[in-house]
Amino acid sequence: MTMTSATYWLAIIATMAFAVTAVLAIADRGVDIFGVMVLGVMTAVGGGTVRDLILNVQPFWVADLVFIRVAIAASLVAFVARSLFTQPQVFTLMLYLDGLGAALFGIQGAMKTYEMNFGWPLAPVILGIITAIGGGILRDVIAGRKNLLMTTELYAIPVALGCLLLMVGLHFYPQEAVEMLIACTVITFLMRAAAIHWDLKVPAFLVTHSKTG
Amino acid sequence: MTMTSATYWLAIIATMAFAVTAVLAIADRGVDIFGVMVLGVMTAVGGGTVRDLILNVQPFWVADLVFIRVAIAASLVAFVARSLFTQPQVFTLMLYLDGLGAALFGIQGAMKTYEMNFGWPLAPVILGIITAIGGGILRDVIAGRKNLLMTTELYAIPVALGCLLLMVGLHFYPQEAVEMLIACTVITFLMRAAAIHWDLKVPAFLVTHSKTG
Amino acid sequence: MTMTSATYWLAIIATMAFAVTAVLAIADRGVDIFGVMVLGVMTAVGGGTVRDLILNVQPFWVADLVFIRVAIAASLVAFVARSLFTQPQVFTLMLYLDGLGAALFGIQGAMKTYEMNFGWPLAPVILGIITAIGGGILRDVIAGRKNLLMTTELYAIPVALGCLLLMVGLHFYPQEAVEMLIACTVITFLMRAAAIHWDLKVPAFLVTHSKTG
Repeated sequence: MTMTSATYWLAIIATMAFAVTAVLAIADRGVDIFGVMVLGVMTAVGGGTVRDLILNVQPFWVADLVFIRVAIAASLVAFVARSLFTQPQVFTLMLYLDGLGAALFGIQGAMKTYEMNFGWPLAPVILGIITAIGGGILRDVIAGRKNLLMTTELYAIPVALGCLLLMVGLHFYPQEAVEMLIACTVITFLMRAAAIHWDLKVPAFLVTHSKTG
Repeated sequence: MTMTSATYWLAIIATMAFAVTAVLAIADRGVDIFGVMVLGVMTAVGGGTVRDLILNVQPFWVADLVFIRVAIAASLVAFVARSLFTQPQVFTLMLYLDGLGAALFGIQGAMKTYEMNFGWPLAPVILGIITAIGGGILRDVIAGRKNLLMTTELYAIPVALGCLLLMVGLHFYPQEAVEMLIACTVITFLMRAAAIHWDLKVPAFLVTHSKTG
Repeated sequence: MTMTSATYWLAIIATMAFAVTAVLAIADRGVDIFGVMVLGVMTAVGGGTVRDLILNVQPFWVADLVFIRVAIAASLVAFVARSLFTQPQVFTLMLYLDGLGAALFGIQGAMKTYEMNFGWPLAPVILGIITAIGGGILRDVIAGRKNLLMTTELYAIPVALGCLLLMVGLHFYPQEAVEMLIACTVITFLMRAAAIHWDLKVPAFLVTHSKTG
């Protein structure tokens, strides 16, 4: 299996995980099967779409509709088999796959921005973060849920650190892009996986004091 | 009256209906006349604007500002004459005109996407849905209202089915685009009109169980 | 100091003020330092980014990352020194600087749109308003706060009037663009400053009756 096809298959698995976790996140709100599909697709491809609008390129899913098809299919499966996916072990597996997706999409988004020589070094980091979390934030805003920017979840911070590391690495070793891409994706995923496994949060002294409870 | 001018006048009537129903939807929130205008315009042209950003073409309202002018005027009239528009018969008329607008804008959005050969067959359906419901969702998110993706209203589903039908029709009869456009707009509107008239909703077995009430 | 460098420095000060007032606005929600940075940056550059997407030009912050850097730095300072910025005199100063920013960004946004000959005369006014208030609305939607379109705050109305005035002025004196730009920015700021100083609101007869409290 080549590097490209490995990335492609990982992206498909991650798209599936994004759609499934989206459906689980909104299932307690009384959403119909059409809303489930729309929000599943939006979560899976929304971040990359916003990134591509800012980069002024065609949204990545237009040329190859497989990401839309996978997101629709995964949303429908998750709708029908909600009780399966909420079982602890399956849910935990989905959380890790979702974390893999955030790492993969974030680092890929930063790399795409870097390769277009677009606002180095901050724009690749910003667009990497948007790629990873943009879809989930759109979903939560539309579903009326508290989104992850308003929690102390360690989700976006690993992505930000991974994208920053990628920019530093590419600055010093511009010829080693593939190795950097793999290393930063793995490191980002390991940070997120550690946060899931040990239930790590942003420490309280780095959080403003909530008056809304 | 030619086909083009018929479509043009229908689009203007639909723009008016979108702005009026927007003002009625948010009137109970204590919004000032400026907010009413902004949310009326946003509801009327927001979906088409997002579609055009994704298609990477100039927003449709820039070349002909009549849609903005109509939306502003209709918003102001609806603000001043709220008590008129909330009378049952007038309100019902507005609901049907709004449904006509959703059918018209949705099918037109799908056709525009199809003619640009953009991500066939799923992108025309997706962008048709965005054209029809995008503005209303933007409005509801900004006004802090529950939006229609979170209800069991039969509003977006007729649009989605109509756009799908258009793609199937154009696949088999690519030379009959005008007939297909008219037929799918009528069918979409009839589905929506039936939902309004008989108060049809998505059946409960296709809705997740709400825990938030 | 030339006109251009004066505008540049004013824009940097305004970017700082937008980020600081953003952090103060969301501080009571329990946001971590990363969320503070993201929402600070989004508030400062979000409106101009949406304007540039609609204009189909590269977002203004990509070519010169100083606006992102200033917004990040100001967000971090505001996070650390929240107790300083909430002192009445400092807070009032920030309110006025934020009003200066709204005037400056709004009028600049309208001028940029005018110079591209884009949808005159309504599009420059609409995009001027989006430039001034778009970032704040994005922030409030994501933070789950009531945004200024849903209040009777005199914030967007001065910007709208200033942009309208600019279009009227440029229509009659197209050669005096620089003078018009300065005059309309000053007038817009003075309207906003008067609203802050005398706590002016939209009068009740121009507001719909709220049933949600």
